[in-house]
Amino acid sequence: MSTATVDPEAVVDDSAQRRLALAKEASREVAQLTSSDKSAALDAVAAAIEAAADRIIAANAEDIARGQADGIGDALIDRLRLDEVRVNALASAVRDVARLPDPIGQVVGGHRMPNGVALEQVRVPFGVVGAIYEARPNVTVDIGALALRAGNAVVLRGGSAARSSNTVLVDVMREALAAQGITPEAIQTVDDFGRDGARALMHGRGFIDVLVPRGSASLIQTVVTESTVPVIETGAGVVHIVLDESAPLDWARDIVVNAKVQRPSVCNAVETVLVLRQAAPLLVPVVASALQSEGVTIHGDDMVAGLVSNVVPATEDDWAAEYLSLDIAIKVVDTLDDALAHIRQYSTGHTESIITSDARNAERFLAEVDSAVVMANASTRFTDGAEFGFGAEVGISTQKLHTRGPMGLAELTSTKWLARGSGQTRG
Amino acid sequence: MSTATVDPEAVVDDSAQRRLALAKEASREVAQLTSSDKSAALDAVAAAIEAAADRIIAANAEDIARGQADGIGDALIDRLRLDEVRVNALASAVRDVARLPDPIGQVVGGHRMPNGVALEQVRVPFGVVGAIYEARPNVTVDIGALALRAGNAVVLRGGSAARSSNTVLVDVMREALAAQGITPEAIQTVDDFGRDGARALMHGRGFIDVLVPRGSASLIQTVVTESTVPVIETGAGVVHIVLDESAPLDWARDIVVNAKVQRPSVCNAVETVLVLRQAAPLLVPVVASALQSEGVTIHGDDMVAGLVSNVVPATEDDWAAEYLSLDIAIKVVDTLDDALAHIRQYSTGHTESIITSDARNAERFLAEVDSAVVMANASTRFTDGAEFGFGAEVGISTQKLHTRGPMGLAELTSTKWLARGSGQTRG
Repeated sequence: MSTATVDPEAVVDDSAQRRLALAKEASREVAQLTSSDKSAALDAVAAAIEAAADRIIAANAEDIARGQADGIGDALIDRLRLDEVRVNALASAVRDVARLPDPIGQVVGGHRMPNGVALEQVRVPFGVVGAIYEARPNVTVDIGALALRAGNAVVLRGGSAARSSNTVLVDVMREALAAQGITPEAIQTVDDFGRDGARALMHGRGFIDVLVPRGSASLIQTVVTESTVPVIETGAGVVHIVLDESAPLDWARDIVVNAKVQRPSVCNAVETVLVLRQAAPLLVPVVASALQSEGVTIHGDDMVAGLVSNVVPATEDDWAAEYLSLDIAIKVVDTLDDALAHIRQYSTGHTESIITSDARNAERFLAEVDSAVVMANASTRFTDGAEFGFGAEVGISTQKLHTRGPMGLAELTSTKWLARGSGQTRG
Repeated sequence: MSTATVDPEAVVDDSAQRRLALAKEASREVAQLTSSDKSAALDAVAAAIEAAADRIIAANAEDIARGQADGIGDALIDRLRLDEVRVNALASAVRDVARLPDPIGQVVGGHRMPNGVALEQVRVPFGVVGAIYEARPNVTVDIGALALRAGNAVVLRGGSAARSSNTVLVDVMREALAAQGITPEAIQTVDDFGRDGARALMHGRGFIDVLVPRGSASLIQTVVTESTVPVIETGAGVVHIVLDESAPLDWARDIVVNAKVQRPSVCNAVETVLVLRQAAPLLVPVVASALQSEGVTIHGDDMVAGLVSNVVPATEDDWAAEYLSLDIAIKVVDTLDDALAHIRQYSTGHTESIITSDARNAERFLAEVDSAVVMANASTRFTDGAEFGFGAEVGISTQKLHTRGPMGLAELTSTKWLARGSGQTRG
């Protein structure tokens, strides 16, 4: 039922659905490309991006001007901006993806049935990957390249703030494919259909094999609840660090500071620290002062406020907050059980870490916390495709179906079973 | 975002959602059970089912009487009926599941990061598995046992026609767990909430980690399009066999007859046969007459009607039909390309097979057909968990996310990443 619930040939108007149908058709062609074909195509895409730098930057300037007129804020403007260095970085990322090992055709299982039928489970492309994301033009190129490396066609729906940039980037990628003799229909955008484009993706049964939302919690929530196509939920991270009674002071301080400060705007940054009561008088002042000297605002409970100055009193909202900023919530808990209960209630299942020198507590934490990545004595910032050695960043799955945690190229594939017989029938 | 979007503690009324919350809470306990604990619990469930045979059969008699009064038909009555032999078979199936290797804790990947952090990817339970199915009481026991073997809690929603049987079966399983010192809340039913029970499952975000629909195409379609929780789509099979120009006559005849006749009511039974034109005069009369002698009605195109008597003229509806009966559609196509195009248009992505002695055509078919199982020279009836050696039948996934084809116990699990460090921070 996942294929061909609508006949692509029947959709002839220039609608968003037509783009989906073209992508579906193109997916059959790119699924059969060899690894060398795909590497060559991606190298051509990279060269085309470099050659079109002026065109890309000019289009980006339109987005920047519109964004400034709309007053979207400096942080967003910065994420939106493409200059020559960033355009070259885009091209370089595409070349990196071109060098990643091709997952397609890998044999992941199989055996011979007692009657002699040879069974083989092989990795195959999904077919058509959909992506809905916000105003970061680099995602257009990253997801386009990753999808193609794994033999998929892709339908992109970027944020309207990056629309001019995305239009040119998609054009450039399509032109590069065409020049390589590969159908340009393998890369589609539905940006020009506005909300209808997103809706077509979310309801594109028969065309879209998997849909990946990337962006804010509300965007992800909308895609997850509205879609009738299979979705991989990514991202939102209310990330916890527990400071156990036996936590070494330097590890506690260094890991919490690193996890909060190194890049506060990303999903693997820590948001809440839970400190065991017995260790709080020792740990909280040191950790809090290290955070404050980096400009972090501490939202703490009464005990934290009694140990540290300049604490904002924490409310219920703080325990559920994904700040994505230089803010952190700190709470004192009586026992490890209480810490685990707090995490069960407030965690989004992304990453949690315990700092401890007690092996039993470390192993209990690793066993009982139900998150994509569970750590002992390491910074939550390591939850990342590149850090995990996957070479490329698709997103971080916070659901349990298909894949959990950082997603590499293999996570953009499915499998199928091949059965080779010689006339066998079932008895 | 996949966990704790609702606080289970906050749901206190006796609602369907309360059952989901109890299952979620219980899932934490069963996730930590050892393999021996789970085997012992399942053996106790099997013994309890045998001991309660009279109670189960009496409840089933109520369902049968109600079904007969409602005139639901002999085939459904037969699927619904439990007698002593069938009750013993239920218990025996549970004992088989108890002996299957435990997938939980299996290390499926990992490596040491350059900075020394040890990464390990391990199999973990989903948490809470939901199931929505029709009037087959054996599914209640099968899915209950499989879910528990993989360390999951389960929430069941069976067909109303089997409600009395299911109520007793769930009671018996819960009593057996409690007697083993395991929380009975690990097995829940929401049958008593009628449609609201199904709705609670489909919208049970934060409680239901994966939902498996089993049953008719319309039931599956409803669950897939209405659910906001992750779903594994199963089942519907418009299954094709292609008879290539070089198909050996005996293989063509034996495989088509086996694939249609051995058990016509199941999803891996063939529905459409595509015959290459050049071979049609040789193959069609032999295959058709073998089918007709087994009582099969042939729905054929003009060329088939010209080669065989008693052919019902095929219409567009026949090419899309999942007959699940002693009916078959036969169409003559000019080329293998045409056969592939027909499959693209009408297949549900379940299973397709080609009968050929031409290695090039076999490999092309295996590479290009985008279905869960693609075969050369074997009966489509082999697409089955038991035949694939999985030991147990969860269903057959026709989607590409998470798992594709027959689902074994491992497909009822997720993974998580464990990271063990010694104070590492990200540079």
